[in-house]
Amino acid sequence: MVDTKEKIRKAALKLFNEQGIDAITIRHIAKELDISHGNLQYHYKNTNDIILVLFNELNDGFSRVFTQGENIGQVTLEHFRQWVEILMEHIWQYRFIFLHFVEVTRRVPEVKTLYNSWDKAREEQFLLLFNTLIKEGIFRDDIPPYIWKNLITQQYIMADFALSHNEIKMQLKGKKAVQYYGEVLFNQFYPYLTAKGRQQADKHQGIN
Amino acid sequence: MVDTKEKIRKAALKLFNEQGIDAITIRHIAKELDISHGNLQYHYKNTNDIILVLFNELNDGFSRVFTQGENIGQVTLEHFRQWVEILMEHIWQYRFIFLHFVEVTRRVPEVKTLYNSWDKAREEQFLLLFNTLIKEGIFRDDIPPYIWKNLITQQYIMADFALSHNEIKMQLKGKKAVQYYGEVLFNQFYPYLTAKGRQQADKHQGIN
Repeated sequence: MVDTKEKIRKAALKLFNEQGIDAITIRHIAKELDISHGNLQYHYKNTNDIILVLFNELNDGFSRVFTQGENIGQVTLEHFRQWVEILMEHIWQYRFIFLHFVEVTRRVPEVKTLYNSWDKAREEQFLLLFNTLIKEGIFRDDIPPYIWKNLITQQYIMADFALSHNEIKMQLKGKKAVQYYGEVLFNQFYPYLTAKGRQQADKHQGIN
Repeated sequence: MVDTKEKIRKAALKLFNEQGIDAITIRHIAKELDISHGNLQYHYKNTNDIILVLFNELNDGFSRVFTQGENIGQVTLEHFRQWVEILMEHIWQYRFIFLHFVEVTRRVPEVKTLYNSWDKAREEQFLLLFNTLIKEGIFRDDIPPYIWKNLITQQYIMADFALSHNEIKMQLKGKKAVQYYGEVLFNQFYPYLTAKGRQQADKHQGIN
């Protein structure tokens, strides 16, 4: 049995993704589910409450992807590429957050607090991954630490705002958007590759 | 004599930057200038008209920066760094557009059309600049064309959404935001540098 709270979250996610957060009220979500406004408010007081719960869901999903990455013994460039694409798929599922990120954080300040609380842990996970790829001879070993840190910031900006760029410029849908922006993110690592790493990257490019 | 239209644009830019586009109406701008609502509407019918004119101003500014870049005979990495910082300064001046880019393009569709019409010309200007830096032995000559094209897309995403990232994470103001995100953008070029280029970059890093 799917519980009512889960049904509400799913309906809200669908409506937010389709129409943005400003256009959607508790009444719209209740109507979508054919339940009463009062019944919905028994579970969630307002749309901001639902946005915060959806943001937590998104974060749980990211954590699962990061943990998967850590559990792979030997990391190849192809694992890394797939991992980036899974992250983009996740971002696509919760796209309303990224399309209206500044507005979401202004309406629901807890989102900003949560987002910034991940930083330290995620930065360490990224640096660990980079080090593994350096040890395996896939990433270069002559890049200074401030550039690796900077690369993490760049990856955040690109992942968080890829779909805003898509909305303004490419207007790709679903799988196509995920693939395109997965590549844009992944290709940022190209100049960090050793000759061995480049061979692996070019092989994939050849089959496209 | 500063004409009324210019005064209106300046007041609108100030208010949009401070309070966003949803909170500001023609009446707020008229009040800021202490002119009548009717007088303002004689010049601009609504806020969307003003947003479009401000977007054109921004574009004119970008064009001037790009043309300056082309007129420099010999390009050094330091020119390039300064050029990136001037672009970020410009973005900061018109920050409301970038903080609400998706909303702006939904409200004023002409902004999206204009933005996309620059693409071809700007891409050529970027590739020309990259080629100049390759010829001068500052950028590497072993990077495939699809990676250079991809780098342009990445630069667009980072430049356009740097200030949204700032709003959510860093909350830097004015000159500090310009410097920080200027560096984030510039550092993306680091792994594309030759040994000679890296020496120039590290020298600057040393004096920071």
